[in-house]
Amino acid sequence: MIRVSIIGATGYAGAELLRLLYNHPQVQVVHITSESYTGKKISEVYPHLRGLYDQELISMKDMDTIANDSDFVFIGLPHGHAMEVGKALADTNVRIIDLGADYRFDDTDIYEAWYKVAHTHKDAPRVYGLAELYREDIKNAKIIGNAGCYTTASILALAPLVKNEFIEPNTIIVDAKSGTSGSGRSAKQMTHYPELYDNFKAYGVATHRHTPEIEQALGHLCHRKVTLNFTPHLVPMSRGILSTCYANIKQWVTPEMIDKAYTDMYGDEYFIRLLGRGAYPSTKEVRGSNFCDIGWHIDLRTGRIIVLSAIDNLVKGAAGQAIQNFNIACGFDEKTGLDFTPIYP
Amino acid sequence: MIRVSIIGATGYAGAELLRLLYNHPQVQVVHITSESYTGKKISEVYPHLRGLYDQELISMKDMDTIANDSDFVFIGLPHGHAMEVGKALADTNVRIIDLGADYRFDDTDIYEAWYKVAHTHKDAPRVYGLAELYREDIKNAKIIGNAGCYTTASILALAPLVKNEFIEPNTIIVDAKSGTSGSGRSAKQMTHYPELYDNFKAYGVATHRHTPEIEQALGHLCHRKVTLNFTPHLVPMSRGILSTCYANIKQWVTPEMIDKAYTDMYGDEYFIRLLGRGAYPSTKEVRGSNFCDIGWHIDLRTGRIIVLSAIDNLVKGAAGQAIQNFNIACGFDEKTGLDFTPIYP
Amino acid sequence: MIRVSIIGATGYAGAELLRLLYNHPQVQVVHITSESYTGKKISEVYPHLRGLYDQELISMKDMDTIANDSDFVFIGLPHGHAMEVGKALADTNVRIIDLGADYRFDDTDIYEAWYKVAHTHKDAPRVYGLAELYREDIKNAKIIGNAGCYTTASILALAPLVKNEFIEPNTIIVDAKSGTSGSGRSAKQMTHYPELYDNFKAYGVATHRHTPEIEQALGHLCHRKVTLNFTPHLVPMSRGILSTCYANIKQWVTPEMIDKAYTDMYGDEYFIRLLGRGAYPSTKEVRGSNFCDIGWHIDLRTGRIIVLSAIDNLVKGAAGQAIQNFNIACGFDEKTGLDFTPIYP
Amino acid sequence: MIRVSIIGATGYAGAELLRLLYNHPQVQVVHITSESYTGKKISEVYPHLRGLYDQELISMKDMDTIANDSDFVFIGLPHGHAMEVGKALADTNVRIIDLGADYRFDDTDIYEAWYKVAHTHKDAPRVYGLAELYREDIKNAKIIGNAGCYTTASILALAPLVKNEFIEPNTIIVDAKSGTSGSGRSAKQMTHYPELYDNFKAYGVATHRHTPEIEQALGHLCHRKVTLNFTPHLVPMSRGILSTCYANIKQWVTPEMIDKAYTDMYGDEYFIRLLGRGAYPSTKEVRGSNFCDIGWHIDLRTGRIIVLSAIDNLVKGAAGQAIQNFNIACGFDEKTGLDFTPIYP
Repeated sequence: MIRVSIIGATGYAGAELLRLLYNHPQVQVVHITSESYTGKKISEVYPHLRGLYDQELISMKDMDTIANDSDFVFIGLPHGHAMEVGKALADTNVRIIDLGADYRFDDTDIYEAWYKVAHTHKDAPRVYGLAELYREDIKNAKIIGNAGCYTTASILALAPLVKNEFIEPNTIIVDAKSGTSGSGRSAKQMTHYPELYDNFKAYGVATHRHTPEIEQALGHLCHRKVTLNFTPHLVPMSRGILSTCYANIKQWVTPEMIDKAYTDMYGDEYFIRLLGRGAYPSTKEVRGSNFCDIGWHIDLRTGRIIVLSAIDNLVKGAAGQAIQNFNIACGFDEKTGLDFTPIYP
Repeated sequence: MIRVSIIGATGYAGAELLRLLYNHPQVQVVHITSESYTGKKISEVYPHLRGLYDQELISMKDMDTIANDSDFVFIGLPHGHAMEVGKALADTNVRIIDLGADYRFDDTDIYEAWYKVAHTHKDAPRVYGLAELYREDIKNAKIIGNAGCYTTASILALAPLVKNEFIEPNTIIVDAKSGTSGSGRSAKQMTHYPELYDNFKAYGVATHRHTPEIEQALGHLCHRKVTLNFTPHLVPMSRGILSTCYANIKQWVTPEMIDKAYTDMYGDEYFIRLLGRGAYPSTKEVRGSNFCDIGWHIDLRTGRIIVLSAIDNLVKGAAGQAIQNFNIACGFDEKTGLDFTPIYP
Repeated sequence: MIRVSIIGATGYAGAELLRLLYNHPQVQVVHITSESYTGKKISEVYPHLRGLYDQELISMKDMDTIANDSDFVFIGLPHGHAMEVGKALADTNVRIIDLGADYRFDDTDIYEAWYKVAHTHKDAPRVYGLAELYREDIKNAKIIGNAGCYTTASILALAPLVKNEFIEPNTIIVDAKSGTSGSGRSAKQMTHYPELYDNFKAYGVATHRHTPEIEQALGHLCHRKVTLNFTPHLVPMSRGILSTCYANIKQWVTPEMIDKAYTDMYGDEYFIRLLGRGAYPSTKEVRGSNFCDIGWHIDLRTGRIIVLSAIDNLVKGAAGQAIQNFNIACGFDEKTGLDFTPIYP
Repeated sequence: MIRVSIIGATGYAGAELLRLLYNHPQVQVVHITSESYTGKKISEVYPHLRGLYDQELISMKDMDTIANDSDFVFIGLPHGHAMEVGKALADTNVRIIDLGADYRFDDTDIYEAWYKVAHTHKDAPRVYGLAELYREDIKNAKIIGNAGCYTTASILALAPLVKNEFIEPNTIIVDAKSGTSGSGRSAKQMTHYPELYDNFKAYGVATHRHTPEIEQALGHLCHRKVTLNFTPHLVPMSRGILSTCYANIKQWVTPEMIDKAYTDMYGDEYFIRLLGRGAYPSTKEVRGSNFCDIGWHIDLRTGRIIVLSAIDNLVKGAAGQAIQNFNIACGFDEKTGLDFTPIYP
């Protein structure tokens, strides 16, 4: 059994880790922390866990205890705080999966420019935690910077096209739509029920922090700098992301070549379901699961490809992907604890 | 491994059985049937099952094949049709769990009066499939008439009060609210999205067929005829039932006696979570799980008790309960395949 | 033109007053106040009003200015605060419609017991602002205590039965369901979008403050003390209340007598639409309008009547009713500014 | 008073016309037709209209009666059917506003290619009914082909940029999201409540029929052929469209030039609310109204502009725009019957 602790367990990603780890046969959840709810039971904070988890939340200030008792820690803190944990555990054997942004960037200048905080752990030995693309690196990583939600859906949708240089990278536009759980558990005016209900709108146009993360991963695939537009929108539901991605296809590329590129890259990936050319993924068909469903459409009139991808933002976009990365890092079957169907309808 | 078939697998209850059985360690799903989609793969009808179930749907006319290959059949047909299956399998060793109403009633006259169809299998050896109340009978049953969704929530809420004769049975009023998946998968004007969205209403006042089913089970508990009001409402969501139950408390009954009655009856029940006096169950806190959460409120001003219970109508109100009954019937641990957390938020 | 000011204009009831008064031909909105947003334009607080209202919000501390410039004030403050306005305007000619609870009760002891604040304006000359029942009193009132949302739906549903003594008052149970705008515009954990979305639950069982308000109005109708159960629930939508009311019918009462009682009492009421016996009002069919739709069901098995009523909580349950009362108080046609269709779908 | 009839009054656009015309001071609704509900009252088909419209639905086969009694007809039929009405009324004085697609295209070959039906009224004297762009033509038109819902939002968003040749037309991508009322009132599997609830998906990628309509109007503005991508999505709500439009800005264009272009073109338009650069329109802020809210974002990193526009698809996208066109055609103030606030929250 691997001894796991969760630092910052009372956000939605933390709660989702608890849901998924409950059925992981190789994991023992040792400590869970919260600074706001220290001393409370997790089931008081999340009553849906009554009878399933009755552990008490401790403070992350007890880092020595956590370090001694854990083989792995998952971090569910706001960006800027995971670096502190990373430094505190640097000289221990504890391995880290951070669900935030602190360890996602090769170039910490980019992190600092978009996140507006100083990076204080620039030399951290880290890998980007998007399992399908960075599997080999993840195996022995000390620190895994788990990929973001929008970014996972968008990178997976575009990777075969970028890697094969079938599209012009600088024509890429990603128009993404997410349920509201991505904005966290704190009550805000913007997420007050009557304000968001029966409403649809964009936010963060040209400024959302997942932009450079998508650019970095696609840049790795085509070995040059990629600059693109990413536009997030809020859908009045709780879970789910649909990413609609546009790009200009190079003239020599045929539809069959594109189909083959998807199959070659993802044919053996359990968590990527290729629905094929002309197909429509939907957020409901992946609800609660770690799947990323992908379909693509080729518009001969305009010479563009439109790729659609759907994930559950809290699973493949956060906690599920973290466990997938954990499985890889531990040498377990990647599906361990994640092999169940979406919940429908 | 128990060989299981599902007759009528393309309704929502059938799909939910497939979701839950996917993780049942003792079950092999042998045949699945549909008359509308015969010859199609289940994943064409329910694309969320792609890669998980790719079985072909057969016709239930192949009953001999089904009978030969199965130890158990689950029936997800509209009422009136399960009787035909029951008769066809009468002389086989196949055991049956019917998720519809055909085998729920002791007195088939009541069935015929409320369901407006003739009962053609009156002598069927059957038990009522509400695990917490009929566990012993279920163990060796040939045919289990799985309890209905509204009825499960309502009976479990009221059982300790009725059994202990703490309330006047004929003052019982059950005001229940359900998500829309209970009305099935067929498109109807009433369930057309723009009509139901942003809407709330009652239906079936004084005529809903779950009324006599609740009356029967409560009558068993207090050994006399119970007549009550049951009012269902449609909540503009997909899953979940909240049942709000009212009754006059007898004068000699104290709040502590009531608390104790709930603990005595349900203290050891895994799937019933007693939230206690003054608590508020919510449909979201049981979403996707087999739990029934119960809270109660005593109003000294009016002398009434108000009991609140929440279930997921497709799990504890249908497929989950069926598997719980199946586990009992097979001698397995009752939680087998059902031991996971609700999905939240 | 009547000069109107709104004290506390930035809550949902205040915003709804602005929506409705925009098309009132006899009203000039003079001042609007907010303590949180003093100095801001109302269209900055409510962008949907851009181009329609660009007035600046002032502080209610400028009460002299407000008093001098206004014939009427509508108050949209939390309970406990309207009393201060009422006292400040006591010796002016300004008439008051308070959308809160401060002026709803004959007996301020009841107010103090349920609202947990001292009443400091006990001798205020006030009438209860439920137009259909208190029309004559409203005509010349100085202070109108506008009826609450749940209470309006519930009292109107039951009034003909109670007035004619067709039912046993102490068997009344009101099970009501409301959209979330009733809980106000302040962001709270409970109304955080992902928490309430896809959820249904009760709150305030046996303790909700609308209970004594319903009891008072029904008591007036039958000239004796009424004690009843009122249970509110939150529906995951923004607007709309459905009230499901139960009571035992006296044995000598026939269905025809009941039908006639509704017609006699409401046949000439423009804003009450009698859908008749066996009918199902729905919140969507009154959305945005001042209508109260009523249907009733008689259950001969149990001897009970079940009355269903639907309103828009922000219109007939708040701002629309306030304008209806205002029209009565000014001698205008009651429909002035309120004569439009619901918005559907 | 203008005598108006509605051919095909029982679709959502027809019902919305009835809602809006109820408060139009210059209109008398003479006849309303339905082939499915002939002989029924409209209030039986749409109970929210009880007490407001109790007219009986007649068949459109009574075209002579309709023609004799009407000055204007609004047509709410599926495409392909309005042509028959147009031909039947060709030699009368009756003027026509068709809310469908039959009269929207200059080039009926394009209509036939995208709509897959023969156009049988090719020489009809018709104008495109997008008021802000075609106002002069509308004034004396015999037949007005009312602009589509997605198209209205998209064309209005892009018009100032295309007209001033600030963007490369062939880089335009329109990613649009709509509530479900746009798909009509007929129950379909795709719009069955539990299927669409809690779901988000695209449809009609590269094939949606609003594509050539947007291309035509933008082509008029820049006097050359425009080819673009249009991708519609279904939002799980009833009303509202948000259109997110992308295009490459020409190098010589400054942000200030863009701001000025919007103000020059729309500064005097009542129904277009310019929220400005950096702003976020939302569907809720225009709910129920004829407004089109527009905001734009300039991304200097990518050289693109992102324009966001929000409308209510049944108002500015259908019935409201039809009345705006009607007002222009009759010489009324354009706001007549349409001057009210959105409904919020």
